[in-house]
Amino acid sequence: MPATYLVKLNDVDAAGVVFAPRVCAIAHEGYEELLAACGLPLADLLAEGRWALPLVRLEAAFHAPLRHGMRVRIAADGTAWEDTGCTVVVTLRDEDGRLLASVAQTIACIALPERRRAPFPPPVRAALARLAEA
Amino acid sequence: MPATYLVKLNDVDAAGVVFAPRVCAIAHEGYEELLAACGLPLADLLAEGRWALPLVRLEAAFHAPLRHGMRVRIAADGTAWEDTGCTVVVTLRDEDGRLLASVAQTIACIALPERRRAPFPPPVRAALARLAEA
Amino acid sequence: MPATYLVKLNDVDAAGVVFAPRVCAIAHEGYEELLAACGLPLADLLAEGRWALPLVRLEAAFHAPLRHGMRVRIAADGTAWEDTGCTVVVTLRDEDGRLLASVAQTIACIALPERRRAPFPPPVRAALARLAEA
Amino acid sequence: MPATYLVKLNDVDAAGVVFAPRVCAIAHEGYEELLAACGLPLADLLAEGRWALPLVRLEAAFHAPLRHGMRVRIAADGTAWEDTGCTVVVTLRDEDGRLLASVAQTIACIALPERRRAPFPPPVRAALARLAEA
Repeated sequence: MPATYLVKLNDVDAAGVVFAPRVCAIAHEGYEELLAACGLPLADLLAEGRWALPLVRLEAAFHAPLRHGMRVRIAADGTAWEDTGCTVVVTLRDEDGRLLASVAQTIACIALPERRRAPFPPPVRAALARLAEA
Repeated sequence: MPATYLVKLNDVDAAGVVFAPRVCAIAHEGYEELLAACGLPLADLLAEGRWALPLVRLEAAFHAPLRHGMRVRIAADGTAWEDTGCTVVVTLRDEDGRLLASVAQTIACIALPERRRAPFPPPVRAALARLAEA
Repeated sequence: MPATYLVKLNDVDAAGVVFAPRVCAIAHEGYEELLAACGLPLADLLAEGRWALPLVRLEAAFHAPLRHGMRVRIAADGTAWEDTGCTVVVTLRDEDGRLLASVAQTIACIALPERRRAPFPPPVRAALARLAEA
Repeated sequence: MPATYLVKLNDVDAAGVVFAPRVCAIAHEGYEELLAACGLPLADLLAEGRWALPLVRLEAAFHAPLRHGMRVRIAADGTAWEDTGCTVVVTLRDEDGRLLASVAQTIACIALPERRRAPFPPPVRAALARLAEA
């Protein structure tokens, strides 16, 4: 089930549309909500103090502007596993299903507190895998 | 010496002016720059792990809109000491010196990791006192 | 019915809690959602091009830190009418009903495009009145 | 001359580093400062009401975390012209010159108020060309 987000007054910039990096933030916020629904609240993961899941790469295509008052549907449309990370494609659509933006987030698994890359622990891997089916 | 800030594209909201809570954030960002210039970089203070200086109260008056492209001067115009905290009045002015907003930030000193209120340690107190003279 | 908000990764600052001006932004975002539920979507109001409802004053008290992963309930707890504006008290509570922050937003009604203060038009006044009953 | 940015308390997220979309916003803010220094203040451009320069694509690689208190140098390291847009590579480096992030922003020129793509007008093209030499 996708997350939904109402575009607020303060999401819009001086050009009258949502600022591109803010679109990426909205995508990540939706991804965080979807992860929590898949059993992986990022807050709990960080509180454990063992793992962080930072973005190492981000590729976004902006197809149509997000505007004030839109209700945007945020979904994970695919997950690709790589040796050292995982790419989750987050899509933002309007209420008619029209694609507004797609944001490919490449995430690394970082072991804390050393901050070195590590394989995803199985529960994290499972939650990320469930994301695209959600 | 006041800090200066160029109002960016993404500071402005759908109404064409800087969103009020963002004005408060700009005030705090200027205060953080001024504190660093007074010998108290917040990053170093937090890295020590002994003290945090959260806001417990915030009173802001917005006199004129901040607009895209303005260069705003941020200064600490006064510091009032209380038993349990300190109030720093941060003002935002345009290049002609016209008052745009004034933000009174009441700060508590919190001892970490317990997160209980504590008297300001002398170097913090000294830096806060220097702020309004800066 | 209050709005709810899940505190995200990017709401938290370097001190490990939600940055005070961001708390004020979350309050305003909840207020925007509540206004829409009361029949006054701010986007439609702005699109009309006749009125804006900027904050002219903001008074916030922060009682307990908002932390990553909290689900915060945002409600309008009272509306006070003044000659030239209206103050809406927005409260943020945790899931147990504990008060985290209260943000008094004083709003002016601004006639566009001249940007001069004006009495609230009746539908805006009615929606603001419904807020505190919602 | 690159722009500089002091990483603030509120730039850092719950994982203790600057949130990736915020890194992209810092890159765009630096680009906006550099553009102004090259004679193209975005505020003036938007105020004319004839052109907007939205991002249509964004590709960011995050090499090392941005941390609270860092002074980041933001520069435009290259500009590539395409039929329908222009890609500006913005780099963020620490004070030792180490690459922290690189953000390729693909910008379209949009004629207002119709919001259709148009060739860059010569003064915009000239300013964008000067960026990478700055």
